[in-house]
Amino acid sequence: MSIPPKPPQRSSCPINVALEILGDRWSLLIVRDLMFTGRRQFGDFRAAEEKIATNILSNRLASLARDGIIESLPDAGDRRRTHYALTEKGFGLAPMLGELIVWSARHHDTAAPPPVVEAIEHHRADWLAAMRELWMKSRDAG
Amino acid sequence: MSIPPKPPQRSSCPINVALEILGDRWSLLIVRDLMFTGRRQFGDFRAAEEKIATNILSNRLASLARDGIIESLPDAGDRRRTHYALTEKGFGLAPMLGELIVWSARHHDTAAPPPVVEAIEHHRADWLAAMRELWMKSRDAG
Repeated sequence: MSIPPKPPQRSSCPINVALEILGDRWSLLIVRDLMFTGRRQFGDFRAAEEKIATNILSNRLASLARDGIIESLPDAGDRRRTHYALTEKGFGLAPMLGELIVWSARHHDTAAPPPVVEAIEHHRADWLAAMRELWMKSRDAG
Repeated sequence: MSIPPKPPQRSSCPINVALEILGDRWSLLIVRDLMFTGRRQFGDFRAAEEKIATNILSNRLASLARDGIIESLPDAGDRRRTHYALTEKGFGLAPMLGELIVWSARHHDTAAPPPVVEAIEHHRADWLAAMRELWMKSRDAG
């Protein structure tokens, strides 16, 4: 699929640079699906509660792959089939997403399970290690 | 200024809830300006390097105020004048923005000063305390 060429960067501010890659709610919801849920196929992302449109999903998957956040990997069971997975760079968004969960749960009524929020906030290193283990598994599970 | 009514929430996932409030690069650039730079007036935000359009800026300021992220406060020197400042809830985004800076600086060529990145990454509590002090000052400086 062809995606529009990347527009020139508006500034080299690190927050702006990150937002030019991720500053679209749909992109970060795909990263969320890959990081926190078992979703890893096109149809799985489509089925998420927020109901992303097919054309937006195709476009965002291509952008995220172009920017090195996700990649398509062969399934362990059937190597002709593929699934999406976060790259190391994409998994590196875990601390940021963790902070976003903590902030959101503190200020809004959300579905975040309190023990998860507590783990992110007060047992950060353990939480990150557990997340990394899940991520490694997701990269080769069939 | 009137802003469009808030659309119904698509899910109560904490990441989605946060993105429905902040999932627009311009909103987070305004939060950045208030948190990390001396910018706090309409014209200051307009002058930022990313060149936000006037109508988008007005709209995002109104949305951020509606969602309790920023507020308009009287200047200390001349109480008929006002400036924008982050609320406690808005300042609460500091850890998330800190992680975004670290991620961005690690994976991209950015203007982030290495000592700042180092402070966020390895002296997190001190960095947050210093940020909080700056924030408190910004709320009443004239």
